[in-house]
Amino acid sequence: MPITVHVAPESDPEVEAAVRAGGGEIAPLADADALVWVDSNPDGFPSELPDGVRWVQLPSAGIERWLDRVDRERQWTTASGAFGRPVAEHALGLMLAGVRRLHEFARAKTWTRPPIGELAGATVALIGTGSIGRALIALLDPFDVEILAVTRRGRDDTIPIGRAAEVWPRADFVVVAAPATPATRHLIGAPELAAMRENAWLVNVARGALVDTDALVEALARGAIAGAALDVTDPEPLPDGHPLWDEPRALITPHVANPDATLMRDLAGLVRENVARLSAGEPLRSPVDLDAGY
Amino acid sequence: MPITVHVAPESDPEVEAAVRAGGGEIAPLADADALVWVDSNPDGFPSELPDGVRWVQLPSAGIERWLDRVDRERQWTTASGAFGRPVAEHALGLMLAGVRRLHEFARAKTWTRPPIGELAGATVALIGTGSIGRALIALLDPFDVEILAVTRRGRDDTIPIGRAAEVWPRADFVVVAAPATPATRHLIGAPELAAMRENAWLVNVARGALVDTDALVEALARGAIAGAALDVTDPEPLPDGHPLWDEPRALITPHVANPDATLMRDLAGLVRENVARLSAGEPLRSPVDLDAGY
Repeated sequence: MPITVHVAPESDPEVEAAVRAGGGEIAPLADADALVWVDSNPDGFPSELPDGVRWVQLPSAGIERWLDRVDRERQWTTASGAFGRPVAEHALGLMLAGVRRLHEFARAKTWTRPPIGELAGATVALIGTGSIGRALIALLDPFDVEILAVTRRGRDDTIPIGRAAEVWPRADFVVVAAPATPATRHLIGAPELAAMRENAWLVNVARGALVDTDALVEALARGAIAGAALDVTDPEPLPDGHPLWDEPRALITPHVANPDATLMRDLAGLVRENVARLSAGEPLRSPVDLDAGY
Repeated sequence: MPITVHVAPESDPEVEAAVRAGGGEIAPLADADALVWVDSNPDGFPSELPDGVRWVQLPSAGIERWLDRVDRERQWTTASGAFGRPVAEHALGLMLAGVRRLHEFARAKTWTRPPIGELAGATVALIGTGSIGRALIALLDPFDVEILAVTRRGRDDTIPIGRAAEVWPRADFVVVAAPATPATRHLIGAPELAAMRENAWLVNVARGALVDTDALVEALARGAIAGAALDVTDPEPLPDGHPLWDEPRALITPHVANPDATLMRDLAGLVRENVARLSAGEPLRSPVDLDAGY
């Protein structure tokens, strides 16, 4: 019996083709083994799911907006595994923009040559080694950087978050690519910013809440670090008139690291793989870990 | 007998250490086998070189400013081999800035989300496969791009410049990394720009004269291509009030692809290698080819 999958709130040809390519069939929700929700907006998500639904695929990397829906009755998976590469590409673009002062040159109306740095040979603190972090490590491979990877518990090749204080004074770049949880809220605050190098760039492609915005505004204003490149902000959207819009050391991109144009393509790839894994009785990719909060 | 090397117009500790590391000795010009000129300004360069000087190392990748000094009496080498990597890093930064619209976001004062693209999977036309081109190919390796390399005469794996017309309509990025010679002047002009894709980015990290600036201004104004990211311009410096300063599709960086901070380090690496090669009677790296004009 093929796995039956319902795609909602609207059908999506790319995702439905992926269901079939994974060996599944499209079905109404009442008859479905699985639900794939393809809209980043949770409005309209069923308040009760049929008992037959034993797997739900969410369309976002983070689960903040789905926290009150996720239960322990069935498996839930996020899209975090799908979007690692485009987000890592954006992170690399922000790192290069910072060290090469592209944000300043984009605003300039005259030919002036401030000293610029380079990424090659730099030390990169990478907070989180999920799909974004792993994809970024691959993109950084030709640059001969030293990577200081920080993870929740630490592993042989990573530093536990409890010892992150060792990392800040060493890093030329601090790249935030960790999930937003109560434990990671304001992971980068005033003490962390004060401990960073004056030439350091802070890059956030995860969630705005991991950085204490007020502390960052203050640190940038006094030149404590070289700059901040943020694809995510807190609050988000960043309101008009916010000091970050006028901060010369800041580069804000409006949560576009994962381009809309490729979103369904990448989600479809994950759906295909997870339908095939469910059919084969294998563990699904990117499962929600409710105890960890992501 | 160790090779004797004179470093001018001023001594430079990093370059002089490189001479010794390559097995050479520092000497006055009158006693020297070789001259390493460490200033990008040719003012003060000796109008006559002692006959004993059989090799001159220039500090620039291009030889335009040295053309009236270079003779056929001795070997001349440029620094083109030394600067490939930092310039390629800048080129990658400009490519990512373009496709990710960082130049627009840097100027924005409000949260708006235009559609953005990605580098991964794109087609990259690379004009020139010298040290910059080769270093860029290495940096692009993790992006799974298709590279269409264009060279003067063409090789097994490159397209001769005479057939470049095939390349323009296929490329999402056109990266100019070829030497400035009479033959490459205005290599990118009105017909080439008209043949490019509407989503294409033109990136120039070579010399300004390879692009017809007036044709580019016109092409950008009518949206014929997505944008141009230029580290070099014609005229250079780009004068205040030039239309490119106000063109939303342009990103200008003031000839900084090779950061001043790393210039002597990279030149020193080349000097060390060339001193060792001269001592061993091996061919030098980055020789000037007067017939080719670079």
